[in-house]
Amino acid sequence: MTTRHSRDDVVATALDLLDEHGLADLTMRRLAAALDVQASALYWHVPNKQSLLALVADRILERARPVEHDLDWPERVRAESGALRDALLAYRDGAEVVSSTIALGLGASAAWVRLLEATATSDATVDERELAASVLLEFIVGHVFREQQQSHADALGAAAPDRALDRDPDGGRVFSFGVDLIVDGFRARVGARA
Amino acid sequence: MTTRHSRDDVVATALDLLDEHGLADLTMRRLAAALDVQASALYWHVPNKQSLLALVADRILERARPVEHDLDWPERVRAESGALRDALLAYRDGAEVVSSTIALGLGASAAWVRLLEATATSDATVDERELAASVLLEFIVGHVFREQQQSHADALGAAAPDRALDRDPDGGRVFSFGVDLIVDGFRARVGARA
Repeated sequence: MTTRHSRDDVVATALDLLDEHGLADLTMRRLAAALDVQASALYWHVPNKQSLLALVADRILERARPVEHDLDWPERVRAESGALRDALLAYRDGAEVVSSTIALGLGASAAWVRLLEATATSDATVDERELAASVLLEFIVGHVFREQQQSHADALGAAAPDRALDRDPDGGRVFSFGVDLIVDGFRARVGARA
Repeated sequence: MTTRHSRDDVVATALDLLDEHGLADLTMRRLAAALDVQASALYWHVPNKQSLLALVADRILERARPVEHDLDWPERVRAESGALRDALLAYRDGAEVVSSTIALGLGASAAWVRLLEATATSDATVDERELAASVLLEFIVGHVFREQQQSHADALGAAAPDRALDRDPDGGRVFSFGVDLIVDGFRARVGARA
């Protein structure tokens, strides 16, 4: 290759390919072709595909819009949850990439930390705040994973015309209701002790 | 083939293959070989792989242990959630099979109906109960999906030794805390109006 690509270029190109072709078709071979290098040259930047996906997951989450820090904690949790949902929705298969990165322990901790910090002004213990951040993150990722599976099925015309659970075409009502229940449950728990 | 297989045999064998080899390796070709028939014979029972997976998802959920109906609704929600989690955990890739079936609208509605019925004695509206059932189902499936991704990564030795989010090795604490928050949030919402 005539110019050396930076790791940033590699991750940016991987994100473009993900968005265009989906996770199943994001291969090291295809990424190398898009960068006009040999596949072996990629390993100078990332040891394997899972590490590449972890960098892509971090990039997706970095693009989540910032949220004001001086909101009351329930508002801040709702705002952070919405920002993370939108970030995952912004890229095809975003939830699956982030979910597998979390499962492998390779990254995506920025999202968890944002959710943890969102409850900093509550009266909860650190343990409760950590558990709540994990619950919120699992709900957000799980919710968007289903939204993206549905979009994909719809795009292929593969979905059944009469979906028993399809009472929420844009996914927004179930999402807001879920975040509200978790926030209210957390408030009840903290309030009961105060 | 000398004996005709029933649809039940086909689904039972598919479930065995899923548990043994995982979703990625559950192909119509492999299923046909396990049943000692031509792949074309399978299409007499199921029109395509997604329909097969929907039947497998229903079978997984049918095996969820029954829960007493005369519990108070919060206890019943906790018991149903635990029974569904255990049912998904009982088969390799169970959460992914159920998740994609739900996304495609092809089945798995039994789980949603159980969660809906669990709140029958609460003072919530049907709309609130339907939304809460969807929230619970997304949390349960999303949670087990991550548990199973982690087990798979651990089995392959692919997980990072230092997982930022791995404060819950058996997954049980985050799960219970999440169901409790959702139940408490639902109770706060219903109670505020009563």
